Amino acid sequence: MIYEDYGVFTPGPVKMSDDILAIGAKQTPYFRNEEFSKVLLNCESDLLQLLNAPNGSRVIFLTASGTAGLESVVMNLLGKTDNALVVNGGGFGERFVSLCQSYEKNYTECKVSQTDLTDIETLFDASKHNTFIVNAHETSVGHLYNLEAIGTYTKKNNLLNIVDAISMFLTDEIDMQKHNIDSVILSSQKGLALPPGLTMVVLNPKAIERVQDIQSHYFNFKNYLRDGLRGQTPYTPCVTIILQLEARLAQIKKDGGISVSIKKAKELAEYFREEIKELEYDFFTPYMPNAMTTLTPKNKSAMDIVIELETKHKLMVCPNGGALKDTIFRVSHMGDMNKKDIDKLVKALKEI
Amino acid sequence: MIYEDYGVFTPGPVKMSDDILAIGAKQTPYFRNEEFSKVLLNCESDLLQLLNAPNGSRVIFLTASGTAGLESVVMNLLGKTDNALVVNGGGFGERFVSLCQSYEKNYTECKVSQTDLTDIETLFDASKHNTFIVNAHETSVGHLYNLEAIGTYTKKNNLLNIVDAISMFLTDEIDMQKHNIDSVILSSQKGLALPPGLTMVVLNPKAIERVQDIQSHYFNFKNYLRDGLRGQTPYTPCVTIILQLEARLAQIKKDGGISVSIKKAKELAEYFREEIKELEYDFFTPYMPNAMTTLTPKNKSAMDIVIELETKHKLMVCPNGGALKDTIFRVSHMGDMNKKDIDKLVKALKEI
Repeated sequence: MIYEDYGVFTPGPVKMSDDILAIGAKQTPYFRNEEFSKVLLNCESDLLQLLNAPNGSRVIFLTASGTAGLESVVMNLLGKTDNALVVNGGGFGERFVSLCQSYEKNYTECKVSQTDLTDIETLFDASKHNTFIVNAHETSVGHLYNLEAIGTYTKKNNLLNIVDAISMFLTDEIDMQKHNIDSVILSSQKGLALPPGLTMVVLNPKAIERVQDIQSHYFNFKNYLRDGLRGQTPYTPCVTIILQLEARLAQIKKDGGISVSIKKAKELAEYFREEIKELEYDFFTPYMPNAMTTLTPKNKSAMDIVIELETKHKLMVCPNGGALKDTIFRVSHMGDMNKKDIDKLVKALKEI
Repeated sequence: MIYEDYGVFTPGPVKMSDDILAIGAKQTPYFRNEEFSKVLLNCESDLLQLLNAPNGSRVIFLTASGTAGLESVVMNLLGKTDNALVVNGGGFGERFVSLCQSYEKNYTECKVSQTDLTDIETLFDASKHNTFIVNAHETSVGHLYNLEAIGTYTKKNNLLNIVDAISMFLTDEIDMQKHNIDSVILSSQKGLALPPGLTMVVLNPKAIERVQDIQSHYFNFKNYLRDGLRGQTPYTPCVTIILQLEARLAQIKKDGGISVSIKKAKELAEYFREEIKELEYDFFTPYMPNAMTTLTPKNKSAMDIVIELETKHKLMVCPNGGALKDTIFRVSHMGDMNKKDIDKLVKALKEI
């Protein structure tokens, strides 16, 4: 088994708890029955509660990874007369833009940098648009946007607010009602700390009304909404990950809810940032999520550090590709992480 | 955990071996590196060997369930000038037809029953077609088609031969060269006996040449073929299932290869069919795969038997829906199954 004894600080997959892993070693049960329906309905209701979704909201469970969440939202929620403002502040914003282009949707690309969108009023012209699309945490560079400012803006301009929360759910605050969010995309292998392979799309009633008739079967929200009423999916779901999700959501509730989960991530992120203060690193952006810290080494190649951490210290942090390859690397604070894990990484960074 | 102590005879999920389950309890490693690339390349080469694929064949690894395999093949391999003969002998044939319809492909639906296509020459007119699509095992009713006859026919008529082998790979013979097959669809939770969530599409060079430019990102074969050269996928793969796949394929090789695996399934199927001979059941079709037996109770409702097996005997067999609800139920022989498992089921069937 590869990398079993490595410390994992990558933003997905993240470290999982022993309880969740134990479920991975159970036989997969048959799922076209009431027992499994109960599991899926439990997952839906717990997720909606954690997001403070309004009454009538629903969850679509896709057996697929995060990009399928982005793609399916573009396919299902943007009709011929819709027009979207799409925030592009990095690789995942770029992906939304590219999807809108491929599917010939009406959209305006909004390239941004050096802002968390607190100044959103001055940046975009929403007069011809009815939809807003953003990656709440642009994971490619570790940049968090201001969901409150976005919510105020989308409410004022009557925009359907679609938020990719894949790498900030459970570590940074997101509240569908407070932040005026209509659709949220989640994935299993980030803050939820489950194996990759499950992506969820949450729709409030306004977003449900937007769902289009589309060619795709596998990503057809109408069929998922229909079968989901009885706790089933149109096609074989990733049963094991869904059983792990149910256990994980129960654990979050037992531990005190989403605020406890966010507080823990915040403490870990702040602890890490404090501990490396004296070292030769800059923070890449001032708008850091609790989920992750992106570091710019002052005197070394980022990629060299990533490789040294892996080969000499058995610690996996996340490199960047392309133009940022030697400039930044990323350290996740998501998953079943504690201060001792961080101490190991800080110790290694001090030795490099 | 639901149904942990149940005997599972459903055609997916199937019973997994302890070795495979143990991998499900390991931390998911980071995957954008050479170590994981080696795993994926190993899986590709082992799968191609098991299928006796010709040189230059490739495997596309989709994090998705089986329908995504069917859908992606229709999307990627059927261009505007192509025209497919689509065999429809049940629910999964129907699904291919429905996909061709949704994507506005040129196709002819070939409804069949009471034949394993040994008489294929007399059934279809291939003169206007260049593609043939079939579910080798129509799992909805447990009906196996004759891949040799299909191969001879598609070769003679120069048809691209696309075979859904999801529920017959490793239990019934399939050989891409001997059977003149150009594309094969596989899924994790059938004969491979892994958790659901991974679907594979195998393409020989002729099928690779057919790959179209399509709108979809998540199902874009060109991107998978490109990234697959270095053992990677365009989007986060279901890492854990792929690690389980690597172990499973190594085990099959160690045990003597695909012929041993097929022989074992055949023995189990024949044993089960012999053991229930005296009971009040008919076989639904004479063209039975080794993967599964479909039974028609002579004097009882099939659904009543399914429920009694579950509630009184903790044994899960697979019911049918719709018109066949009371007529048939299905017993899988796939997965980590032995004669003792079958004895339990036969004993229960005798008591009903």
